[in-house]
Amino acid sequence: MIPIQKITVIGGGSTYTPEFVDGFIQRREQLSVGEIALYDINAERLELVGGLVRRMAAHAGLETTVATYTNRPAAIEGADFIISQIRVGGVDARIRDEKIPLKYNVIGQETTGPGGFMKAMRTIPATLDIARDVERYAPNAWYLNFTNPSGIITEALLTHTPLKVVGLCNNPINAIMAIAEYAGVPDEEVFLDWVGLNHLAWIRRAWVKGRALEIEELVQLASQHGHFPFEPDLIRLLGMLPIGYLAYYYYHDEAVREAQRAGKTRGEVVKEVEGELLKMYADPNLVVKPPELMKRGGAYYSEMAVRLITSLLTDRRDVQIVITRNNGCILDLPASASIEVPCVVGAHGVSPLHVGHLPEIIRPLVQTVKAYEQYAVEAGVSGSRETALKALFTHPLVPSYSVAKAMLTELLEANKEYLPQFFGKKS
Amino acid sequence: MIPIQKITVIGGGSTYTPEFVDGFIQRREQLSVGEIALYDINAERLELVGGLVRRMAAHAGLETTVATYTNRPAAIEGADFIISQIRVGGVDARIRDEKIPLKYNVIGQETTGPGGFMKAMRTIPATLDIARDVERYAPNAWYLNFTNPSGIITEALLTHTPLKVVGLCNNPINAIMAIAEYAGVPDEEVFLDWVGLNHLAWIRRAWVKGRALEIEELVQLASQHGHFPFEPDLIRLLGMLPIGYLAYYYYHDEAVREAQRAGKTRGEVVKEVEGELLKMYADPNLVVKPPELMKRGGAYYSEMAVRLITSLLTDRRDVQIVITRNNGCILDLPASASIEVPCVVGAHGVSPLHVGHLPEIIRPLVQTVKAYEQYAVEAGVSGSRETALKALFTHPLVPSYSVAKAMLTELLEANKEYLPQFFGKKS
Amino acid sequence: MIPIQKITVIGGGSTYTPEFVDGFIQRREQLSVGEIALYDINAERLELVGGLVRRMAAHAGLETTVATYTNRPAAIEGADFIISQIRVGGVDARIRDEKIPLKYNVIGQETTGPGGFMKAMRTIPATLDIARDVERYAPNAWYLNFTNPSGIITEALLTHTPLKVVGLCNNPINAIMAIAEYAGVPDEEVFLDWVGLNHLAWIRRAWVKGRALEIEELVQLASQHGHFPFEPDLIRLLGMLPIGYLAYYYYHDEAVREAQRAGKTRGEVVKEVEGELLKMYADPNLVVKPPELMKRGGAYYSEMAVRLITSLLTDRRDVQIVITRNNGCILDLPASASIEVPCVVGAHGVSPLHVGHLPEIIRPLVQTVKAYEQYAVEAGVSGSRETALKALFTHPLVPSYSVAKAMLTELLEANKEYLPQFFGKKS
Amino acid sequence: MIPIQKITVIGGGSTYTPEFVDGFIQRREQLSVGEIALYDINAERLELVGGLVRRMAAHAGLETTVATYTNRPAAIEGADFIISQIRVGGVDARIRDEKIPLKYNVIGQETTGPGGFMKAMRTIPATLDIARDVERYAPNAWYLNFTNPSGIITEALLTHTPLKVVGLCNNPINAIMAIAEYAGVPDEEVFLDWVGLNHLAWIRRAWVKGRALEIEELVQLASQHGHFPFEPDLIRLLGMLPIGYLAYYYYHDEAVREAQRAGKTRGEVVKEVEGELLKMYADPNLVVKPPELMKRGGAYYSEMAVRLITSLLTDRRDVQIVITRNNGCILDLPASASIEVPCVVGAHGVSPLHVGHLPEIIRPLVQTVKAYEQYAVEAGVSGSRETALKALFTHPLVPSYSVAKAMLTELLEANKEYLPQFFGKKS
Repeated sequence: MIPIQKITVIGGGSTYTPEFVDGFIQRREQLSVGEIALYDINAERLELVGGLVRRMAAHAGLETTVATYTNRPAAIEGADFIISQIRVGGVDARIRDEKIPLKYNVIGQETTGPGGFMKAMRTIPATLDIARDVERYAPNAWYLNFTNPSGIITEALLTHTPLKVVGLCNNPINAIMAIAEYAGVPDEEVFLDWVGLNHLAWIRRAWVKGRALEIEELVQLASQHGHFPFEPDLIRLLGMLPIGYLAYYYYHDEAVREAQRAGKTRGEVVKEVEGELLKMYADPNLVVKPPELMKRGGAYYSEMAVRLITSLLTDRRDVQIVITRNNGCILDLPASASIEVPCVVGAHGVSPLHVGHLPEIIRPLVQTVKAYEQYAVEAGVSGSRETALKALFTHPLVPSYSVAKAMLTELLEANKEYLPQFFGKKS
Repeated sequence: MIPIQKITVIGGGSTYTPEFVDGFIQRREQLSVGEIALYDINAERLELVGGLVRRMAAHAGLETTVATYTNRPAAIEGADFIISQIRVGGVDARIRDEKIPLKYNVIGQETTGPGGFMKAMRTIPATLDIARDVERYAPNAWYLNFTNPSGIITEALLTHTPLKVVGLCNNPINAIMAIAEYAGVPDEEVFLDWVGLNHLAWIRRAWVKGRALEIEELVQLASQHGHFPFEPDLIRLLGMLPIGYLAYYYYHDEAVREAQRAGKTRGEVVKEVEGELLKMYADPNLVVKPPELMKRGGAYYSEMAVRLITSLLTDRRDVQIVITRNNGCILDLPASASIEVPCVVGAHGVSPLHVGHLPEIIRPLVQTVKAYEQYAVEAGVSGSRETALKALFTHPLVPSYSVAKAMLTELLEANKEYLPQFFGKKS
Repeated sequence: MIPIQKITVIGGGSTYTPEFVDGFIQRREQLSVGEIALYDINAERLELVGGLVRRMAAHAGLETTVATYTNRPAAIEGADFIISQIRVGGVDARIRDEKIPLKYNVIGQETTGPGGFMKAMRTIPATLDIARDVERYAPNAWYLNFTNPSGIITEALLTHTPLKVVGLCNNPINAIMAIAEYAGVPDEEVFLDWVGLNHLAWIRRAWVKGRALEIEELVQLASQHGHFPFEPDLIRLLGMLPIGYLAYYYYHDEAVREAQRAGKTRGEVVKEVEGELLKMYADPNLVVKPPELMKRGGAYYSEMAVRLITSLLTDRRDVQIVITRNNGCILDLPASASIEVPCVVGAHGVSPLHVGHLPEIIRPLVQTVKAYEQYAVEAGVSGSRETALKALFTHPLVPSYSVAKAMLTELLEANKEYLPQFFGKKS
Repeated sequence: MIPIQKITVIGGGSTYTPEFVDGFIQRREQLSVGEIALYDINAERLELVGGLVRRMAAHAGLETTVATYTNRPAAIEGADFIISQIRVGGVDARIRDEKIPLKYNVIGQETTGPGGFMKAMRTIPATLDIARDVERYAPNAWYLNFTNPSGIITEALLTHTPLKVVGLCNNPINAIMAIAEYAGVPDEEVFLDWVGLNHLAWIRRAWVKGRALEIEELVQLASQHGHFPFEPDLIRLLGMLPIGYLAYYYYHDEAVREAQRAGKTRGEVVKEVEGELLKMYADPNLVVKPPELMKRGGAYYSEMAVRLITSLLTDRRDVQIVITRNNGCILDLPASASIEVPCVVGAHGVSPLHVGHLPEIIRPLVQTVKAYEQYAVEAGVSGSRETALKALFTHPLVPSYSVAKAMLTELLEANKEYLPQFFGKKS
């Protein structure tokens, strides 16, 4: 039985929160958590979600205290783990991120392209603000970032705070689960040579029960799973399996046209789902995670959090695919870059397995997106319009300087109230 | 008086040839050339151009022998310098290079993008064939490549032959001349910190009479010269001056639309100009380079050739901007890459001034175009359709995998007769 | 129960062999080995050792076949694992390696310095010969190299064969065991940040039950264990713990004087021990590994072999410290260098944890010794005296060019009969 | 006629100063210097030397003002060039630097080994103090460092000041002159591929009138010139020509024994020479540089200074071998390292020709000495005894940790009065 004193969830009013807590309920034989601290700026929603979570814990017979806080220092103080899952500007800002780029024939998306850029601009100041509190009130805590765009936010934290930070995303675990299902084995028997950045990654090779899959098996797998919507010939050309987000790059024209034709954006769908979820959460008879939560996305988030926390605490030294600092692990990227690669996780921390050079067929795309990300981190911290323009101008999906300039102006204006670094502090 | 035994011009039937020879006429006080050997596969045109050149030499009182050859070994044997300026498929192939990509909303251009790619595919086998003769008949000769796309062709030569190769392009000298004119000084008083690849270069800093120009002077210069068609704000954002070819990247949409609207391609214009020039050349009374040759483009080509040859022969050790092997000079590119940078030229050869890291705002574009170029060299040598597809797929102006695939099929088919490496030897 | 068809021990007549086999006896619940094939060029000794091993297996109730071979292809054919533990020239050559350098005031040692160099020169041709048989008769086998100098021999194999090679040395496991004993915990609870080359490594940090040891704890540990004979101040200056072999570098003068004063070399002691062991082995009543084998050294060799084999076969993906190819893992060393670092071992193979830059205080020593090792590999393969001289001249313990030259001549002459690459094939 | 307003010589009381001034006298047709400002802390000696220099200028009909200063800000204010040639502790300190290491069987030398280390420790604080004045009173001046150990002092300046710094040493020009003499050509016709650090350099290749010398010509050259005291076989092994200082590394034992046997150190000789020179300088009838100054060493110092100044001022863009910041020019060394390589010198500054990887046979020695130098810079600035110990411990000529420790204690104690950073400010 591994004891954890306190876990703090920043953005605890999220509809995801019951998913997290369910993870600890599933592992109650293994992990004994003293307190789950939920912090949010939206007190009403926090109480609503907190209420459900408390009922879930009680129903499961957990001895964990579930506390809600709107005072951030109090929420953070003494925590062993900080879990960040915030959404600055809420789902309405996301919908704008999705719609504005489409006007310029550029994909609008929560994490990829100009949409992800704007989310980063809104999120970085808020995140660094939280980090300052963690430095003061829980300096030895592990800071687990789930907030998107996770690669950029994690890099901002790694570069601008001294905290112990790990970035997380459910893409790797989803891929492992999909391959395990495809091969009919438990997920422990799948091992992936995963390489790239968050939301810009490839499976160079997959092993199932110690056997490396042939490229044709990857092609077949891709044809069966929604995560991998690529033509067989493209997979063969690459010699590896791209994750689904790569479709925004490899089939950009098609993706833009499809999004322009679509009735609702993903954000609009999520908004409806969340409305329904919150109604359910309000029901005092609900004492378990509702199955409708699956529609929200974010599969296996709690699984990942629990696995990471367990390995850090128990010195398991198993391999997990997370977001960490490059330091030369991928020789073609700057030392300061955040990367997403297999890492050994133990009490000593998170050690990436060495990668070396990227395959040439993906190298320039990764270098370009990383250059964009590094400008984005810098712009998000400094509020420099020039640096922000450099970020969009560098992004491979932005077709020209003219488009970068026009789109930036519109995006900044639309997000004005969430961009203290660009427009001065909100009163 | 510096003696040169023999200079061989491959593609000697080009309408440029009188320009070259004129360069030696201008320097007759300094350089004494034994033989100018003109080689071409088109005997008729060779005699036409050769006739003019002979009359020019006689008229100028040059003691140089002007000889024409359709036997390549004989043309090459004993040469001190090989000058290559070939055009496989002639101007008609160029016109196809310009038109096909436009159908896919991608720029069609002699050297940039898919057009330049096809020119490389046609040119690499022919060039390496010539190089084999040089290895055998003039292994110690300097091989000066003027053939476009000069960066790719030079890299093919540097990678696949043991010859002493230098690549040349008139972009740098044109920029120097433009700045000298702007500043009202002789070109010797201009010094440029030029960095990048052939046709993908930037002037990081320009000195005039030892004084570094301010960015606003570069902005003003750009507004006065056709070579630099960029908005002031873009130049300020970059903090340096891009060469004209960068407009295809920075304003791709606009460039495509303009080309689609234009009546004639540049190739079509050149075809007419060349027809007129050849008529003039046939006139037995013409004994000097006709002024109409200026319309052909290629300003200062002979000037560059003569300067390079002079420095190599006389150990001048002055700085010239040429195309050479990277070897780590630009830290962000592979050792084998051809780069275009200032070099010291002397009897020992061509030594690039160290560059270090590229400015971040241009780094990913240069890395991406170089990755494309390296695939292009590989495809041009091997004739692998897979590698050719990787080249186009990697090119930053090709918007998607689907476009790359469709365009490649059409381009290869249209160039079939010039692509022995892809389609087997012509009978 | 993990089935292994066949394990082949090259140098099976070694007195170590019972130690290896004992490892499999200890794990008989876990590993089921079809055949242990012992190969040696010394048939008499092979039978003597093979006899004991057969009795051990029978006594333990193992169902494994123990077979002896003097036909190498037959020994290798069908093996899953090749274990190499050869000693070309036997212990007499070792004694010469120890004595000759001392005449030049340079340490004489089995693996470090000119002694190790000569062992490499004798061993490389024999090893590559074996490797050719493995390529032919068991191309998919894992080749586990125990033969010293293990870093150099492993690099020769990694560079000159396509085989799947891992190098092993008991230094890391000895350190782990020593720290476990010091801390009073099982060895699984020790985790080391180990970095360097084989026999030139440092413990940057040690964790015990997930807690990092303070530098003063490392000082105290060093004072209690023979493996770490360093002054407290030196350990503090380094900020890490050097392995024992570093004493030859950090206290070279003292080491030479001590060796010059000593009555017997380690080789001479080993020779006596081996004589006694072989007498014991001949006793038909001996059915277990005799305790006197401990005197021979090589503690935990079988433990390491069994652990590595188990992880490779069962896809355990645990961390083991072995010798593998650098590929940029240590940014300050060539890609082709063999390095000794923590690796994840699974069915996919051996993946080093990324290291990055070496600490500055050890970097030049590691770079220098690696440069020596790379010359040694090249000389061992080519038999070039010039390259051999470069190796010794580069070695940090060889004080001058003059000493390098004189010592090389004497060493080569003394080892003439084992150096076909330098002196031509033995008849 | 190139006008220079003011040149300031720091350490103007040096016996070298007339040599410098003579350089400007020789070029009076070309350079017109307004003021030569001589600064020294030793007022008496300054007037003595200043007197001679004034007489020299008057005798030569120079219109230059020669002014002497003991007020450093006044001396520096408005200077275009600062020339630093200081000797903290004077020649007596040098003699100690030469003698103390020999007790430990390590070479004692002005710039190489522990002697050079101590000179650096004394010189760095004084140099950075001067640099602070230059930052304030002549921030755009070029700072030319002649002070030894010039590589370390130049690196300290490049790392710890924002000034425009170039390091100079007469080794390269001496080699050029020696080769020119050997080949019977003017020095302009010699071109060297020189690579390494200051006082740790090699001539990879030498061209004479555009022809590369064969290795046997380098062997012959070495046998005729005192600068190159190496066995033919060593030169052939290296495949290049080491400069004389390399003998301290390649023949360390012999160098130590010779120095131990020698009656007087070089410092003791210099002390006598300087005494005689100062007596001559005092003679009011002396109006030219006395020929005895040659004995002092430092041939061509003024030649180098004048060449460098001329190229910087007139934008000559010729190649000169000077000490500058690495920035990746030599791929095997840190970006911050000072290196000694051929550079293009013009109004834009000093641009090194790209080197790439060092030849393997010299690489580890250069890496080790540079690591030592970087510790030396750090220790010289910080006064950390730990860092100073790391410097000596890293030096390839210091045989062991024990020797490093003992020698450091003695050296620091002996230099106490000149080491404010280690012992606190002098009152």
